[in-house]
Amino acid sequence: MTARFISFEGGEGGGKSTQIARLADWLRGRGKSVLTTREPGGSPGAEEIRTLFVTGAADRWDGVTEALLVSAARRDHVMKTIRPALAAGTWVLCDRFADSTLAYQGYGRGLSLEMLKTLQALATDGLTPDLTLWFDVPVTIGLHRAAARRGTEARFESLDTGFHERLAQGYATLAAAEPARFRRIDAAAPLAAVEAAVIDTVAARFPDLG
Amino acid sequence: MTARFISFEGGEGGGKSTQIARLADWLRGRGKSVLTTREPGGSPGAEEIRTLFVTGAADRWDGVTEALLVSAARRDHVMKTIRPALAAGTWVLCDRFADSTLAYQGYGRGLSLEMLKTLQALATDGLTPDLTLWFDVPVTIGLHRAAARRGTEARFESLDTGFHERLAQGYATLAAAEPARFRRIDAAAPLAAVEAAVIDTVAARFPDLG
Repeated sequence: MTARFISFEGGEGGGKSTQIARLADWLRGRGKSVLTTREPGGSPGAEEIRTLFVTGAADRWDGVTEALLVSAARRDHVMKTIRPALAAGTWVLCDRFADSTLAYQGYGRGLSLEMLKTLQALATDGLTPDLTLWFDVPVTIGLHRAAARRGTEARFESLDTGFHERLAQGYATLAAAEPARFRRIDAAAPLAAVEAAVIDTVAARFPDLG
Repeated sequence: MTARFISFEGGEGGGKSTQIARLADWLRGRGKSVLTTREPGGSPGAEEIRTLFVTGAADRWDGVTEALLVSAARRDHVMKTIRPALAAGTWVLCDRFADSTLAYQGYGRGLSLEMLKTLQALATDGLTPDLTLWFDVPVTIGLHRAAARRGTEARFESLDTGFHERLAQGYATLAAAEPARFRRIDAAAPLAAVEAAVIDTVAARFPDLG
């Protein structure tokens, strides 16, 4: 069967990266070639742009500049990594894609959604995920989990709670607008339950997985 | 009088940077505060983006990615450097601005001009130069001059002659479309003649320079 492109979306602390690794194992166990990747980044050029994007003060970039940078990184990722992988028959599991820009810069920071959608048409070269798993987790739980991790990439996590509430509402709106593509995952559940939900959802969405 | 924003445009080897320095001296001699700057770059963030943009192989970035990157750099430059300088009463002389993106990525590389204009509206935050000096130099002379310079930023100069011919035609088209803003400078003339032409043009355009 055709290789599929699955994106993982949602606020901080939803456990996306853990579940991406588990779904990749499950797919490989079914004989699929799988690439796991994440945004911003995922190609050498996009990783260099990511460094500009995720480090430094929260107000380092104006919102529009940030949207342009992340769109440049996404374009490079699509052209250099995602499209070639799909063309070679490899499934692609991506931690964040265009919906993140609409959610973070649009709903979160209040930039024009119309402007952001125009940018995303350029950034994605028209590529849309076959399935988007929305990891829905209450803001307080997600931020608590995210704070428990260590690392230098804490720029977004340092933004205020109101931002994260708008973000969660944004994802709910995006999911409601495209029910054929989005599936909601209850990311507040225990890890094993989330894993089962992800696998069940993918198996149901692609019944010819075999 | 109000501080003015003057951009310098044109193909390679036109001698823009030399003339920017001379015009800055002339304006300072008339009591003006002057900032000279250049794109891509001109602010700390934009200089970091510039590094991605001007180094590496000619095909390092897809054309749309390149347009997104240079637009992000321009946005940062406008918000962090150009607008604050103008607001403080400082004249701004800028080596390349939005017209360069239309000329290089649009006319030169063949990307959609409509798409690029949409991006420029974001990148410039609506800021348009009060005067644009188009340094027009025959392609063969410009490339010969550019090759005589040393440096690592030779990515565009390594593109083919056909590209540079399209670029020159693009600038001619842009200048014809906005005669109130553009002034053509014969950049093939001797340095002293170019300097005189630049100063005469600026003095004529802003008669209250005093």
